[in-house]
Amino acid sequence: MNLIAHNKLITFNQKILISAGLDDFSSNSVTLGLCEASLRGVDSHGIRLLPHYVESAISGRKNPKPFFQFTKKFPALGALDADNAFGHAAGMKAIEHCIEMADELGMGAVAVSNSSHAGSMASMALKAAREGYIALAFTHADSLLLSHNGKRPYFGTNPVCAAVPRKEQEPFCLDMATSMISWNKLMVYKSKGVELPENIAVDSNGYPTCYPEEATCLLPAGSYKGYGLASMVEVLCGIFTGMNFGRNIPGMYTAPMNRPRCLGQFYMVMKADGCLEQKQFLERMQEMTDQVRREPAQDGEKVMLPGDPEIEESKKRLKKGIPIDDDTLLEFESLSEKFNVPLLLIDS
Amino acid sequence: MNLIAHNKLITFNQKILISAGLDDFSSNSVTLGLCEASLRGVDSHGIRLLPHYVESAISGRKNPKPFFQFTKKFPALGALDADNAFGHAAGMKAIEHCIEMADELGMGAVAVSNSSHAGSMASMALKAAREGYIALAFTHADSLLLSHNGKRPYFGTNPVCAAVPRKEQEPFCLDMATSMISWNKLMVYKSKGVELPENIAVDSNGYPTCYPEEATCLLPAGSYKGYGLASMVEVLCGIFTGMNFGRNIPGMYTAPMNRPRCLGQFYMVMKADGCLEQKQFLERMQEMTDQVRREPAQDGEKVMLPGDPEIEESKKRLKKGIPIDDDTLLEFESLSEKFNVPLLLIDS
Repeated sequence: MNLIAHNKLITFNQKILISAGLDDFSSNSVTLGLCEASLRGVDSHGIRLLPHYVESAISGRKNPKPFFQFTKKFPALGALDADNAFGHAAGMKAIEHCIEMADELGMGAVAVSNSSHAGSMASMALKAAREGYIALAFTHADSLLLSHNGKRPYFGTNPVCAAVPRKEQEPFCLDMATSMISWNKLMVYKSKGVELPENIAVDSNGYPTCYPEEATCLLPAGSYKGYGLASMVEVLCGIFTGMNFGRNIPGMYTAPMNRPRCLGQFYMVMKADGCLEQKQFLERMQEMTDQVRREPAQDGEKVMLPGDPEIEESKKRLKKGIPIDDDTLLEFESLSEKFNVPLLLIDS
Repeated sequence: MNLIAHNKLITFNQKILISAGLDDFSSNSVTLGLCEASLRGVDSHGIRLLPHYVESAISGRKNPKPFFQFTKKFPALGALDADNAFGHAAGMKAIEHCIEMADELGMGAVAVSNSSHAGSMASMALKAAREGYIALAFTHADSLLLSHNGKRPYFGTNPVCAAVPRKEQEPFCLDMATSMISWNKLMVYKSKGVELPENIAVDSNGYPTCYPEEATCLLPAGSYKGYGLASMVEVLCGIFTGMNFGRNIPGMYTAPMNRPRCLGQFYMVMKADGCLEQKQFLERMQEMTDQVRREPAQDGEKVMLPGDPEIEESKKRLKKGIPIDDDTLLEFESLSEKFNVPLLLIDS
C-alpha cells in the first residue's frame, strides 16, 4: 500500500496546482477539497482527481485565475458568476458570501454559475458548519442517472449535502449522490478491478451489470425517490442559474478538455440559533448524536449518523497516512517530475 | 366504489371541521390540505385522516383556535410558535410569512414549533409555487424508520418536499417520505387488506414482512441514503426548533389523543428570479419538463417528473369524483350524523 502523510499530501497538491497556473485562492480551495475528501475516506472525490484537474487547467476547461463576480438582486439571495473557476474555488467563494449574508440576515443563499466539478460538496458545507452555521449544498452533473421508467439517463448523480455544527468538534455531515453510488465511486471500482454490488448500474442495453467497465449509467437511490431528488437539484443548479441542464451538460470524462462545463451549484447557509441559543442548539445536536450512536445495532454493526464513518476514517488516516492507488501514484509521479515537485511517500 | 365530487368534499370537510370547533383559518387550511391530497391521488394523506383529525380537535391533542406567535431573531429566518395548531394551519401560516420575507429579501425561512401532523407537505409548498416562488418544506414524525444497521427505528419517515413554478399551470412537485413508503400509506394497505411489496417494512423481530398488520417500522428509501435524509430533516424540524426529536416524539396513532405532539416543521421560500427573469425561469422549467416527458421509456411506461402522476390523477378525479374507501365512508357517515352535515355522494 502506497501511503502519504496528510500534511505532505497538502503540500504536494498545492505546489502542483500553483505550478499548473492556479491562483492562491483556487489552489487552496481545490487542495483543501481534494485532501479533505481523501482524509475522510471519500477516495472517489479525493486526490485521484488531481491529475484530471491539472489537465483541465492546462487545457482550458477551467480558469485557473478566475474573476468572480458576485451580484445580489435580493439581499438574501445572491448570484456568483464563477468565470469557469474550479468547482471547489467557486463553492468556497459562494459559501463565504452565504456566511456574510447569514450573519446579517440569518440566512443567505447563493447560486453559482459558470463553475465546474466541485468534488465532494462536504468541503464547502463543512467550512460553514465548522464556523457554527447550518449549510445545505447542491451541485448537478452530466446525465448518468437512469430515469425512472426510462431507457437512458437525463439527470446527473446530483448530490445533496447538509452539514450541521454540534458540541463535538466535527460537524454532522450528510453528503450523498442521489444515485446508488457516484460515478467517481464507480471509477474507483474500475481502477481497482473490483465488481460492483448488484442493482447499482446498467449497461448500454439497460440491463443491470456488475462490471464497472460495462456500466453506462447508474440507478437512482431508492428508485423514483433518488430520481426525484436529482430533479430537484437540477432545478436549483441548472434551471435557476441559467446553466445547461439535463442531457446538455458536457460530460466530465467525455467532453473535450478545452470546453468549459458551465456547471451550477447552490448553497444555503443559516444561523443555527434561529429559534434557540447557539449553545442550546449545539447541545441538542450532540444529544441526538449521542443517542443515535447508542441505538441497538445488528450483530457486528454500529448505528451511526451521516459523516460518522468519515470521522472514524479521518482519525485513522491522520495517523497512518492516506492511501494512493497504483494508477494515481503513477500519475502523481509523472506530475512530480513534470512540475519538479517532490512526492514524499511514507516509507513502507 | 363510493365517489364524491371534489367541491362537495370540500364543503363536507369544512363544515365538519367548523363543527368540531376549528376557526376559519384552521378549517380552511386543513380542508385544502386533505381534499387536495385526495384529489391528487395521495389517499394516504387525504380525507381518510378527517375522522382522526376531528378526534384530535375534540380530545385536546390539537388546538382548534390557535394563537400563532411569529417572531424573527433575524430578518430572513423566522420562528412560528403554532400553539398546538393543526399541522396544515401552522404550515400555511408559516408559508405566508416565508412569502412575505421572500418578497422583501429574496428568501425567507420559517421554523415552526408546537404544531402537529401536517398531512401532505405538498399542500404548503404548492401554495408558494402557484404564486411563483420556489419552496422547500420539511416535517418530522414519530420514529418509524428502521435505523441503518439498527434493530429499531430512531427517526421518523421525515418527508422532503419541493415545489417549483413553471409555464404550465401546475408546479413541479416532489413530495416524498424518506422511508420506502409513508406510514399512512401502509395504513392504506392495511385498510384495503392488501399485502405490501417486498423490502418495505419489518416486523417486531426486525424481519422483512409483507403483512401490513405485522409491520412495526419501515425501511429507508435507498438504504442509508433515506436514513441520512431523515436525519437531516430531524435537525431542521426537531433540533433547530426546540421540539422533541428521535424516539421522544409522541406517536400519531399510539400517543393519548389529549396529548399535544409538539411537532416541528421547516419551510424555505425563495424568489424564482434570483439569477434570471421570472419569465425566463418559467420557460426553462417548462423546457426541462417537456424534455423529461419526451424521454424514451421502457415498454408500457412513461418517463415523468415528480408530481406528474398526481397531476394526471387530479384531472381524472376532478371529472369522475374522489373515491372513499369503505372504512372511511362508515366514519364519514357517523361524522355526518353527529354534526348534522349532509354527505352527498355521487349516485352510482
